[in-house]
Amino acid sequence: MVQTWVPADIVPRELAPGVTARIASGEKVMLSLVTLAPNAVVPDHAHPHEQMGMMVSGAMELTVAGETCTLSGNAIYLVPGGVPHKAVAGPEGAVALDAFSPPREEYR
Amino acid sequence: MVQTWVPADIVPRELAPGVTARIASGEKVMLSLVTLAPNAVVPDHAHPHEQMGMMVSGAMELTVAGETCTLSGNAIYLVPGGVPHKAVAGPEGAVALDAFSPPREEYR
Repeated sequence: MVQTWVPADIVPRELAPGVTARIASGEKVMLSLVTLAPNAVVPDHAHPHEQMGMMVSGAMELTVAGETCTLSGNAIYLVPGGVPHKAVAGPEGAVALDAFSPPREEYR
Repeated sequence: MVQTWVPADIVPRELAPGVTARIASGEKVMLSLVTLAPNAVVPDHAHPHEQMGMMVSGAMELTVAGETCTLSGNAIYLVPGGVPHKAVAGPEGAVALDAFSPPREEYR
């Protein structure tokens, strides 16, 4: 009944050059541990799924609907469903944990 | 449009003795950054909300429906809705990020 994953054992999925995600999913929530190489970019995109995330290490600039903020430490962020957003890692790269609801079927 | 939270600025909520949570929520996902003191216990409980989480630091024993596993590193876990579960922090304590869907109204 205990379902667990070790991220190092999950086959990484490349989201963009220098950006890889290790993804695990339930029925309602999908977690994605994203590693961004220094200065890597997640291009502007949008999806109907709500996205919340937390910085795990490093720093990145997150732009949501044209507004940019710099996130580091364990900063938490919310991207409402359908809103365009992009991310640019800092010079030391970044790791962030994203949670999606509903799960993104294309990532299962 | 960018909604962000700094966990250190969120008023902590005590879930159990030695267990505090800093909670931020969207419409479909709620994130809860939980800090467990050494050997702290989250007593057995259940809720209809699906829960996925990731270890941020330290270690804890998670028991789901009577089955126990030890989590550390960035281990990810899933607790299906309605299933009883408890957690016991290791001797150095633990930090974990939980994601709930739907959000737990009692924590808003």
